[in-house]
Amino acid sequence: MQFMTSASALLLGAQGGLLQSSQTQTEIFEYILSDSLLASSFVVNIALAGLTIVAIAYLARNVTDPRAKLIVISTMLISVVSISSYTGLASGLTVSFLEMPAGHALEGQEVFTMWGRYLTWALSTPFILIALGLLAGSNLTKISTSVAFTIAMCVTGLAAALTTSSVVMRWWWFVLSSIFFLVIIYILLVEWPADAQAAGTTDIFNTLKILTVITWFGYPLLWFLGVEGIAVLGTGITSWGYSLLDVIAKYGVTLLIVTYVAKEPDEVTAGSNYGSSLSKVVPSDD
Amino acid sequence: MQFMTSASALLLGAQGGLLQSSQTQTEIFEYILSDSLLASSFVVNIALAGLTIVAIAYLARNVTDPRAKLIVISTMLISVVSISSYTGLASGLTVSFLEMPAGHALEGQEVFTMWGRYLTWALSTPFILIALGLLAGSNLTKISTSVAFTIAMCVTGLAAALTTSSVVMRWWWFVLSSIFFLVIIYILLVEWPADAQAAGTTDIFNTLKILTVITWFGYPLLWFLGVEGIAVLGTGITSWGYSLLDVIAKYGVTLLIVTYVAKEPDEVTAGSNYGSSLSKVVPSDD
Amino acid sequence: MQFMTSASALLLGAQGGLLQSSQTQTEIFEYILSDSLLASSFVVNIALAGLTIVAIAYLARNVTDPRAKLIVISTMLISVVSISSYTGLASGLTVSFLEMPAGHALEGQEVFTMWGRYLTWALSTPFILIALGLLAGSNLTKISTSVAFTIAMCVTGLAAALTTSSVVMRWWWFVLSSIFFLVIIYILLVEWPADAQAAGTTDIFNTLKILTVITWFGYPLLWFLGVEGIAVLGTGITSWGYSLLDVIAKYGVTLLIVTYVAKEPDEVTAGSNYGSSLSKVVPSDD
Repeated sequence: MQFMTSASALLLGAQGGLLQSSQTQTEIFEYILSDSLLASSFVVNIALAGLTIVAIAYLARNVTDPRAKLIVISTMLISVVSISSYTGLASGLTVSFLEMPAGHALEGQEVFTMWGRYLTWALSTPFILIALGLLAGSNLTKISTSVAFTIAMCVTGLAAALTTSSVVMRWWWFVLSSIFFLVIIYILLVEWPADAQAAGTTDIFNTLKILTVITWFGYPLLWFLGVEGIAVLGTGITSWGYSLLDVIAKYGVTLLIVTYVAKEPDEVTAGSNYGSSLSKVVPSDD
Repeated sequence: MQFMTSASALLLGAQGGLLQSSQTQTEIFEYILSDSLLASSFVVNIALAGLTIVAIAYLARNVTDPRAKLIVISTMLISVVSISSYTGLASGLTVSFLEMPAGHALEGQEVFTMWGRYLTWALSTPFILIALGLLAGSNLTKISTSVAFTIAMCVTGLAAALTTSSVVMRWWWFVLSSIFFLVIIYILLVEWPADAQAAGTTDIFNTLKILTVITWFGYPLLWFLGVEGIAVLGTGITSWGYSLLDVIAKYGVTLLIVTYVAKEPDEVTAGSNYGSSLSKVVPSDD
Repeated sequence: MQFMTSASALLLGAQGGLLQSSQTQTEIFEYILSDSLLASSFVVNIALAGLTIVAIAYLARNVTDPRAKLIVISTMLISVVSISSYTGLASGLTVSFLEMPAGHALEGQEVFTMWGRYLTWALSTPFILIALGLLAGSNLTKISTSVAFTIAMCVTGLAAALTTSSVVMRWWWFVLSSIFFLVIIYILLVEWPADAQAAGTTDIFNTLKILTVITWFGYPLLWFLGVEGIAVLGTGITSWGYSLLDVIAKYGVTLLIVTYVAKEPDEVTAGSNYGSSLSKVVPSDD
């Protein structure tokens, strides 16, 4: 179900591109190359996402349990999305110059908007939550809910960035996005810790929970302080802020998870028949 | 699997935006504000979707069974998509002025196209069918099929609205969309009533079935009669038509479902282990 | 999870549309009509996809087992996506003229780019892999992995086609896409044959495996040789190349699968309770 909402990210992204009135993709690409602070915030993450994928493949090389493997694959897909996302940003494919509406701090100015970031949060954060939910031994309802709301959060955040018709509508999007965010925080701080205790994964889960909750609060804060919001932070700083948050929230969390799962503790394994499409019950192969 | 097709909605939506030749998002936003009939058809649904989310949270506050909760969350996501969808329409982000092709009733005219609606049907209708399928106690195959075909129906309907190159292609899209619609109607009228009888939810399911089938036939009818089709209905009337259908098909159906599920009857519950990601079988947490 | 990545296809597709600088959708439509080689490569597949859907419905008319039905529906959705995809290409909705960057064989020229194809691979190939994975009796982890990586492969291939800012970035996308492709090939050649042996479906699976692996290698080869790559093949030839590969990889494979599954051999059936949303385990109805 959650994937539905993720779709709208794209439409909005498209609109963002639309507003790319004056500049061609080539001009945007040259703009990025000319700003070493900005360019480096993309290139560094392309490299780190690649290294993370390689590290996962190495650390998890001996994992055989299907449930443990499912967690590992979920973490790997975070970086698969990330390396593609940063390649899109670096190539000028998923960024635009958008004219801010009346009432915005940069009213009337064409602002460099990295909407590809907001889009890809909708594509990568679900894998983080799936991995955390599996570690906590949670169930379909809670994991699906967390994924659905993270996508809703990211899509509405993207919409906020792409709405250039009214500053009021931009902040209304921001309010919606923040409400969806609180649902995820509730699951991370209340629901899953209880599940993790029952599953016997409290130690690792709590570490991941703290890292995730703290870093995730950084994203809306940067949105608020950056050029999309009240514009007290410049584009390059904002971009590096997101890039650094990604290093902890994505690659850091990933390596902690994989290091733990690679040992295939009983708390995360479920036997070779796990998720079998032959079993008399759902294959869940969609 | 169904989520695949939903993706294409966005691409098409993007194209719609593309055709937004002359008007900027700000101009479209002002156009909407200047038409109180049109604007109210959006704002009223933003309010109702929000109230529905609050009502669900209140009515289902004591629900603990994971399967009952899954149905409740599915219904809540209908309104989460809806409030975002209407915000997108109101802000001018997901609407465009498209020039109708030769042979169309409004040939050569720039028509106000609310393609964000067709897009979000692809994002919200699956949750309606998931909730109905769960209430009917149906299985993975039938629920997935209904979801896949509702998305295919919405995406091709969206494509019809965005095809400005040929009136013949517009109607060919409409034919494809209508064929996919019949698959859903068959599942609603033949497959699920039998499942509901076996599950003991015939009473509630039949009420929902009648409401859903009748209102759902209204959407293609409005498409046919509205500016997208033969244009006997104007933009404002068409928009209110869709908005009113949404009130019944989305919020009305939701409240009936939640009121029934909130009592957690045995027919919808499945025990605390339902959907556990620890069980030896599939977690289905994607 | 896999559906996440598919989303980004659309955004990129949108950008493709974006670059559709000079031509309107109508002009593109007329361009297609004026090139009978190109137009026929679309129309023939609209017809074949439609016939395949009808053939599936006929061949599988007596199938009752939910697991067998799930395989049949997966194959049908391949053609549902395909008929929509080719209608999009034919109507000019999902193609664009893109100016190739410096260093490209067609540097500075506006090239007819069928990005709707690359997009819809992200929507149809998952169903092929789901059907093959179910036939092989594989599990959630492997099937989800194959689906996630096929979408990542298609989206990055699409991004390659839509990147007009730098020829280096185009090939970097191609490298990423090819790496993701190798993951799928590994699953098809190593993982699933072992699963198929355990499931007793080796004969049918091996035939499908050979057809799939050989034809799938044809797609990146055509991308490399066609106008997107080194441009030794023209647009019409490239288009027909893809269309012919689709005939084997989609309709051919589909008919082999459905003919086998229609007999409901014990190897593919799982009993009437399969995938029940009432069972104490996950309904996987998302």
